[in-house]
Amino acid sequence: MTFTELNTPQRTIMTPGPVEVDPRVLRAMSTPILGQFDPAFTKIMNEVMEMLRQVFKTSNKWAFPVDGTSRSGIEALLCSVIEPGDKVLVPIFGRFGHLLTEICERYGAEVHTIECPWGEVFDQEVVIEEIKKIQPKVTAMVHGETSTGCMQPLELIGAACREMDILFIVDAVASIGGVDIRVDDWFIDGLIGGTQKCLSVPSGMSPITYNHRIERVISARKKVERGISTEEDRKSELDMRHPMVKSNYLDLSMLQDYWGPRRLNHHTEATSMLYALREGLRIVLQEGLEERFDRHAYHERALIAGIEAMGLDLYGERSSKLTTVTCIKVPQGIDPEAVRGMLLDEFGVEIAKSFGPLEGKIWRIGTMGYSCRKENILYTLSALEAVLIRHNAPIKIGQSLQATLDVYSEKYTPNKVTS
Amino acid sequence: MTFTELNTPQRTIMTPGPVEVDPRVLRAMSTPILGQFDPAFTKIMNEVMEMLRQVFKTSNKWAFPVDGTSRSGIEALLCSVIEPGDKVLVPIFGRFGHLLTEICERYGAEVHTIECPWGEVFDQEVVIEEIKKIQPKVTAMVHGETSTGCMQPLELIGAACREMDILFIVDAVASIGGVDIRVDDWFIDGLIGGTQKCLSVPSGMSPITYNHRIERVISARKKVERGISTEEDRKSELDMRHPMVKSNYLDLSMLQDYWGPRRLNHHTEATSMLYALREGLRIVLQEGLEERFDRHAYHERALIAGIEAMGLDLYGERSSKLTTVTCIKVPQGIDPEAVRGMLLDEFGVEIAKSFGPLEGKIWRIGTMGYSCRKENILYTLSALEAVLIRHNAPIKIGQSLQATLDVYSEKYTPNKVTS
Repeated sequence: MTFTELNTPQRTIMTPGPVEVDPRVLRAMSTPILGQFDPAFTKIMNEVMEMLRQVFKTSNKWAFPVDGTSRSGIEALLCSVIEPGDKVLVPIFGRFGHLLTEICERYGAEVHTIECPWGEVFDQEVVIEEIKKIQPKVTAMVHGETSTGCMQPLELIGAACREMDILFIVDAVASIGGVDIRVDDWFIDGLIGGTQKCLSVPSGMSPITYNHRIERVISARKKVERGISTEEDRKSELDMRHPMVKSNYLDLSMLQDYWGPRRLNHHTEATSMLYALREGLRIVLQEGLEERFDRHAYHERALIAGIEAMGLDLYGERSSKLTTVTCIKVPQGIDPEAVRGMLLDEFGVEIAKSFGPLEGKIWRIGTMGYSCRKENILYTLSALEAVLIRHNAPIKIGQSLQATLDVYSEKYTPNKVTS
Repeated sequence: MTFTELNTPQRTIMTPGPVEVDPRVLRAMSTPILGQFDPAFTKIMNEVMEMLRQVFKTSNKWAFPVDGTSRSGIEALLCSVIEPGDKVLVPIFGRFGHLLTEICERYGAEVHTIECPWGEVFDQEVVIEEIKKIQPKVTAMVHGETSTGCMQPLELIGAACREMDILFIVDAVASIGGVDIRVDDWFIDGLIGGTQKCLSVPSGMSPITYNHRIERVISARKKVERGISTEEDRKSELDMRHPMVKSNYLDLSMLQDYWGPRRLNHHTEATSMLYALREGLRIVLQEGLEERFDRHAYHERALIAGIEAMGLDLYGERSSKLTTVTCIKVPQGIDPEAVRGMLLDEFGVEIAKSFGPLEGKIWRIGTMGYSCRKENILYTLSALEAVLIRHNAPIKIGQSLQATLDVYSEKYTPNKVTS
């Protein structure tokens, strides 16, 4: 086998992640690296923390990326908080709710779940009633469920958890940077974001934030590594009354000491990915958070207009739709994978299938970050129409792009989208 | 706080990692990304696996990167193999031996250790005797210990473990791509490499390999995630007689299914980092493994000549010196951090301190990958001499570069270095 230079085809990536990376982010990654304790680099680390606080809408001290893909951030928060036997409540409305339960179970939690049908979200009062009944240490749930394209309202659940002194941990991997999330206002104690979705940064980092309520739990389990620990560290560990976090790599008490002023060596920060994240966050803040959310909603509207004009049906309750993921029911008699394959092979357009009970039943189109732009929406709709015609699907021909262009011809002023 | 464009100073990075990234690798990272299940991308995943096999000198089926920094790969292998109560023997000869014990303990192993003084390595027979005594399930040890600059011979230990049916897991983070490692010939069952050292790829991935002996252990603990598991998966899990791996993110039974033909969604592969790793491995294979090892040894010789001509003393037994890390004793009365600070501030040259008992006692200079080149060696020595003169250190002046140039004026033919 000979290995040629990297040659990749051009793609229009319209999945719910990973999505196209902003060219500015790609350029940032080609910057020569710095050593991890170089003051020029630790300054960049601090800048990223401050940018994350702004994007998360939080004044939390702790906001930094975990060096791994999104689920590393989810696991870092859960495994650092959960001790064996702890009760955790996970309301599930799609695949990634199941992921939360899997992680909690592995770390010895007593996991309680409630489920609602895929394609719907919970009435917050139902979740609050369950929380009152179970009285868990932690309520963990997904905000934007990419598997079903649904978004769960959170603020009442957050307030109820705070009142009952229960920790509220939220997976916002698919929504951060695309729709509004207010960590502090919604009483979220710990939150995990993703890079490869609405931030348009490659996969490989997971930005998280958590407050003093979680820090208190973590600190009681703190352990400094032998080989670098001081006499004082070892003394204070003798008082440790809570079991050590199982994972070393994902132990937030250690990550804190690396991101905090002590700068205690843990891992070697993923330099180029941090450059990427910094540039991705800078783009978000330059665009403006509210402007960015409006842009996502605007292109979603254009996409939906085109899909419905084609005569295709959306999947899921419209009232709980996640702005950044649009799910389409596969028309009767159409081979969903043949359509996806032809879209990719002939047009270079990638859309997604779904998981588990929804596999083969829906297609999912993402409108996230840099992929969420006019030419991508127009091209995807035209490609989808052509491929469906080729597959003899019973669609309305020639109307999709017209409907989408109608939306685009409406005057669009950022931060004041007609809805 | 306003966030400007990324502006980084130019540095000459001569630490034992992270080191300068090869410019070809930096360029590869600026390639637009592909979706994770795009056939053009899964082909790249397969290519990386094959390249890793060649670099690791193994015919193992499994050779792929874990998406995290080096210790994520170490933890992935250890946590996937170790079940609570398992006996693990860790021979320790520096900081990273302690790290292995920390990880094993967290996952419930009964950890046995033997230690030798920092700056030395073990006589293999001593380790083998201990293995015979303890009869562990796993022997885990470091190959190249960056904290002390020592390299442990492994082949006899590997052969003994194989004979006694004990698993042998090796941390080769600091040595892979810089010195010879023969996974199959040395009977290594599982091995972890690092990207940010001799491969000259940024930190953020950890390439690992393991054989069928480890795969057998992992498979008995296999669990497919709810939300994507099939009826068949759930049936076969009923037979699961071994406890599930604690970590989801680092569970190799799941990573296998993602890197293998089933391509079962686990995480979203870190696309740009994989491009980087692919290009880094391609550079290694183009240079040639033996030629690369010789180049590292050649520049090490040039560096040592310069250091000794300056009148500085090396730290550690010369016979067990790791080619890619050179440790220098800080001369009496010299403030080690002031010297490092001036090297960085005035010359843009970064060298490292060490950890724990060696902190403040030695400096460490890395000669790894792309950083391991003539101009870097010459510049570092001239900077070090100037800074030490400035600090009134009792060194021989004007002789260091002459000695190094003498080494460089010897005829150097790759693969045939005069030693």
